[in-house]
Amino acid sequence: MAGVLLTDLYELTMLQAYFAQRMNGTAVFECFVRKLPRERNFLVAAGLEQVVEYLAGLSFSSEELDWLRQSGRFRPDFVDSLAGLTFTGDVDAMPEGTIFFADEPILRITAPLREAQLVESRILNLLHYETLIASKAVRSVLAAPDALLVDFGLRRAHGAEAGLLSARASYLAGFAGTATVEAGRRFGIPIYGTMAHSYIQAHGDEAAAFEHFAQTQPENAVLLIDTYDTERAAHKVVALAAKLAGQGIAIKGVRIDSGDLGEHAQRVRAILDAAGLTALTIFASGNLDEHRVEELVASRAPIDGFGIGTRMNTSADAPFLDCAYKLEEYEGRPRRKRSEGKATWPGRKQVYRHYDGTGRATRDVLALADDLVPGTPLLRPVLRGGRPLDPRPALAAARERVRTELARLPDGLRSLREPAEYAVDVAPSVRTLAARLDAQQ
Amino acid sequence: MAGVLLTDLYELTMLQAYFAQRMNGTAVFECFVRKLPRERNFLVAAGLEQVVEYLAGLSFSSEELDWLRQSGRFRPDFVDSLAGLTFTGDVDAMPEGTIFFADEPILRITAPLREAQLVESRILNLLHYETLIASKAVRSVLAAPDALLVDFGLRRAHGAEAGLLSARASYLAGFAGTATVEAGRRFGIPIYGTMAHSYIQAHGDEAAAFEHFAQTQPENAVLLIDTYDTERAAHKVVALAAKLAGQGIAIKGVRIDSGDLGEHAQRVRAILDAAGLTALTIFASGNLDEHRVEELVASRAPIDGFGIGTRMNTSADAPFLDCAYKLEEYEGRPRRKRSEGKATWPGRKQVYRHYDGTGRATRDVLALADDLVPGTPLLRPVLRGGRPLDPRPALAAARERVRTELARLPDGLRSLREPAEYAVDVAPSVRTLAARLDAQQ
Repeated sequence: MAGVLLTDLYELTMLQAYFAQRMNGTAVFECFVRKLPRERNFLVAAGLEQVVEYLAGLSFSSEELDWLRQSGRFRPDFVDSLAGLTFTGDVDAMPEGTIFFADEPILRITAPLREAQLVESRILNLLHYETLIASKAVRSVLAAPDALLVDFGLRRAHGAEAGLLSARASYLAGFAGTATVEAGRRFGIPIYGTMAHSYIQAHGDEAAAFEHFAQTQPENAVLLIDTYDTERAAHKVVALAAKLAGQGIAIKGVRIDSGDLGEHAQRVRAILDAAGLTALTIFASGNLDEHRVEELVASRAPIDGFGIGTRMNTSADAPFLDCAYKLEEYEGRPRRKRSEGKATWPGRKQVYRHYDGTGRATRDVLALADDLVPGTPLLRPVLRGGRPLDPRPALAAARERVRTELARLPDGLRSLREPAEYAVDVAPSVRTLAARLDAQQ
Repeated sequence: MAGVLLTDLYELTMLQAYFAQRMNGTAVFECFVRKLPRERNFLVAAGLEQVVEYLAGLSFSSEELDWLRQSGRFRPDFVDSLAGLTFTGDVDAMPEGTIFFADEPILRITAPLREAQLVESRILNLLHYETLIASKAVRSVLAAPDALLVDFGLRRAHGAEAGLLSARASYLAGFAGTATVEAGRRFGIPIYGTMAHSYIQAHGDEAAAFEHFAQTQPENAVLLIDTYDTERAAHKVVALAAKLAGQGIAIKGVRIDSGDLGEHAQRVRAILDAAGLTALTIFASGNLDEHRVEELVASRAPIDGFGIGTRMNTSADAPFLDCAYKLEEYEGRPRRKRSEGKATWPGRKQVYRHYDGTGRATRDVLALADDLVPGTPLLRPVLRGGRPLDPRPALAAARERVRTELARLPDGLRSLREPAEYAVDVAPSVRTLAARLDAQQ
């Protein structure tokens, strides 16, 4: 979707300086989130598959090299040096769907300095967005674990890739599917769709619109009933269902997109049930987020599925994560950034998770990768020498991992409103190293 | 960047129903924003160039058609009918850079129903995001009209296209440029870059890092001075400047990325000025938005430029607009959606802007396109019969339009915090039409 020039200019100016100085030793960079947003007790790692694709395909095309030459910003010998550049390094990362917390590296790059630096912008761009959305979408899954949740948000997602990747990330988090057709084609995600108000309006007559639609979608007709008057439309659906039954067509469901969704659902359910249409489902949409879904579920609104759009696809309450990609080691020597409010834990690190006897996670330990400490290591080898170790892990496996990890979370962390702390202990080895580096500078 | 399947499934199911019913009369759809976010007194239209490119290139590839056939969701004769589909309709729109308000159509599509319906999702996806970002970025331009503003936000923009289009939209709104290289290549936007903390850290010695960088970027060195201690680093810059002066190299500036930016800038300015380095500029970055920029400008912090990232690229305080694409007329008959809280003004509309004797905008009138009313019409012909009327308007022209329109705004509307109302009057013809349609249903 984007080439190697989808990067910040400073990556290239730094590369030029490294080239001039012949600096290209082994660097270790780690990605992590400094602080969780207010309403996030945990995050869900996502986007690794796209990062692996990006790294595996990393190269400069001749058009890109020509443009760099013509820009007048770079020395010709430096641009020439980019011609053969590929990613030859190692990647260790938490598998997609892993639940993680602040300060924990979710991805570690070990590579020649220039390669590791060049890829910073796009790696963050991919990991940040999918993690942001998986971490938002999973909250709707917690709010309505038994409902059909569908991503409806392409139109207000931030551009094409956001539309596609939010479909992927929300499916990974437990959504049933998406309305975005291309996401279905590209990622194999189930796709869902009904009709728009314009369909009803173009017909003029609502009942005629319903009938035409049901006849062309005999196995999959979900009728949108709120264009004019929701309950009157429900009665039209009842009349139509009786008429179509003779033709062997069963309407699948109705969708309500405005007004008080809970009250309309109650009244529509009563109208449908009174006519014996108990199998006909009610699908709700319109400005939904996890809080509204939780309220509707708590009020026992008879809603079978939710279309969740804008607020999920933009993570509207927290539209970004405070993530970073930081140099932790160069040529075997640990490094530490000490900028005010942005200091990092130095060295090549690993996260170890501990569980109690029932399988619940109890705490994580942030240690050095070489430490001998107990617990399950969360970062696993992904690339070695630029090559993927395993066949691409399936999206389905990541989705299953989320399901499993949610079940192993301490109960308090699943609350949508109540903040709950999970212990992430920083190992003495990491603290000692930080103190030693501070003393050196 | 994305094909015709970047659309919602319901567009295709509706198209199939229209195909089965042989419905394909002329439809008129309009895009508008229902309600402005709390801290927006006006919006800036953007994204039209991408919409025109999309419409001009609209077609189904054989791979896309094959996928639709294999999906089992569509009738073969319907999929066949898509093979020759292109966009043959008309587009009228506000030129990019036009300032607009709630309920005002910014784009009107007049086309055969199926074409006009199919393009809904992607048109909104493009117009929504660029308008969102131009309307956010322009606030930083209002806060610091004399400073160098640079888009720094690729890494936390929502995917690749958001990175590229936010660079474009913020430049349109008045930013000087972007750090995103590909946006420079694709849109001809000036690009800016300095160095990352990792550059300093990889060297170990900060002064050596500065010197190496300045020697490889002799005309363009901006040194990042907050990795360890900002003021100590400023003294190192002073020493280096004296040393490099002998080699004919002048350091261009310094960047501060953490801590109290205003206080650090004061202290660094004093250090530089005391050494006679008055031409060396100070650039600030780190969690900036228009409010923080306004505070820094108000406090007379000696900052020459700002790198503004995440909060601009995600429009963090208001990450979406309540926009819609609604059928207003079909086969010559006006249409109105009446869903609760989402009712629309019916008919094919135009927006007329009025100005006072000094050239300041005073009010807009939302009228029917055929009304004879005074004022300057804001929607202008863009496509006729699927063909662009003019050569693609330059991004530079849109940027100039923003500048001009800002100057013509009533003063109160330029405030970042104080809400100010601008009068948008709904013409009697529109109200009468709405009442007539309501009576009919």
